[in-house]
Amino acid sequence: MDISPDHPRYKSLVIREKMSKLSDQGIVARTGLIAHGRGEAFDYLIGEKTTPAAKHAEEAIAAYLLEAQNPVITINGNAAALCAEELLKLASEVGAKVEVNIFHWSSERLEKLVSYLETFGNFEILGRNQNAVLENIASDRARCCREGIYSADVVLIPLEDGDRAKALKIAGKTVLAIDLNPLSRTSVESDATAVDEITRAVPNIRQAVKDLKDDQKRRREIISAFDNRSNLNESVNCIKDNLTQQQIF
Amino acid sequence: MDISPDHPRYKSLVIREKMSKLSDQGIVARTGLIAHGRGEAFDYLIGEKTTPAAKHAEEAIAAYLLEAQNPVITINGNAAALCAEELLKLASEVGAKVEVNIFHWSSERLEKLVSYLETFGNFEILGRNQNAVLENIASDRARCCREGIYSADVVLIPLEDGDRAKALKIAGKTVLAIDLNPLSRTSVESDATAVDEITRAVPNIRQAVKDLKDDQKRRREIISAFDNRSNLNESVNCIKDNLTQQQIF
Repeated sequence: MDISPDHPRYKSLVIREKMSKLSDQGIVARTGLIAHGRGEAFDYLIGEKTTPAAKHAEEAIAAYLLEAQNPVITINGNAAALCAEELLKLASEVGAKVEVNIFHWSSERLEKLVSYLETFGNFEILGRNQNAVLENIASDRARCCREGIYSADVVLIPLEDGDRAKALKIAGKTVLAIDLNPLSRTSVESDATAVDEITRAVPNIRQAVKDLKDDQKRRREIISAFDNRSNLNESVNCIKDNLTQQQIF
Repeated sequence: MDISPDHPRYKSLVIREKMSKLSDQGIVARTGLIAHGRGEAFDYLIGEKTTPAAKHAEEAIAAYLLEAQNPVITINGNAAALCAEELLKLASEVGAKVEVNIFHWSSERLEKLVSYLETFGNFEILGRNQNAVLENIASDRARCCREGIYSADVVLIPLEDGDRAKALKIAGKTVLAIDLNPLSRTSVESDATAVDEITRAVPNIRQAVKDLKDDQKRRREIISAFDNRSNLNESVNCIKDNLTQQQIF
């Protein structure tokens, strides 16, 4: 489909076409397209820009990643489709491992996704050899790698489902999320949630990593001052304000 | 995928699986899945139930359909996947024609969709022979049938895009919509918009048709009293109230 760059929703339409194509290639699950649509609606409600609350959470995420002993960034089909290269760069900048972790499990999709991520350069992608299981979550989604998620102290889980976020918390990990719904279980369960669109959030986190790389004192101050629930509250207020502003009649 | 009926989002997950399957069959467009996800997010925000405002709009839609000289109900891929049988029953109860009208046009998808609707019984489905064009809209989406949309005085357009809603208004038609986003262009352009999930909205409209069938006076009172913008405002307020209620922290 031809999309005119003048269209009011040009960027969103181009991303939709890309997601559709990657769904045909088996990278994005069919129901991943539905999940993307949910995200789109929340992005529309937060104003399709990084809010001050999100910026603040993105700094906290950068601080947590830099303070971690053994950080892991998980990538599922939607995160790969939307933001693979940026996520891989972030991982190498903070020394995090990368592990593929999918909601709709099949060995074929797992292999496709690992191979897809390997096309972006010389990154080690965990996920082919899932030799451990998380507790407190149903079987397929419990699978993970011993040297990755299983032994991580800090995990960044972009676009993750609530069950897995909760299981990771119960397993004692610091959980960092990128999620456009400030009221989702993932958002609420996590230690720091960026309520922001992933292609805006990850470059912001990378910038914060640069700013905080050599300043451990400030990182620890940011972490100690950060309150995820009050930050989520700010995002909800932002949605309510946007709705009020659009009530022009 | 096995989904437990105990899952808090069981109904929504079952519908997602159905939409995915119909997407594989070519009934639902890939980007239709994304649009469905957007709707899901708004349904979550309005509380996944018919609000008093929606109920009121559904009555107005029933009244408009019964008062029409030549009503048409349009059905696209998502509307067919979610609600084909109910829409066809509504059409026969109000004497409306049914016309297939898709956003991602291809003669193959059009044929698939018409054939799919024909499996529901002895209904005449317009759309194979698109022999007219609407003005004020880009080429593919302008196509319609002379004996259907083109000559209708009242059109019910469930889950329709804003460009087409606007083109139908400019063409002088009374436009009735079912749309979960109270701020969408479709919602705002239409004469009556039910901000409700389609599988709840259509049975409610059918019930209102039964109630109003023999009461022209009441129908005309409902139409003359109905103010779509103030009704949409009520739906936006309902979303804001729901957000506030969920801000428990």
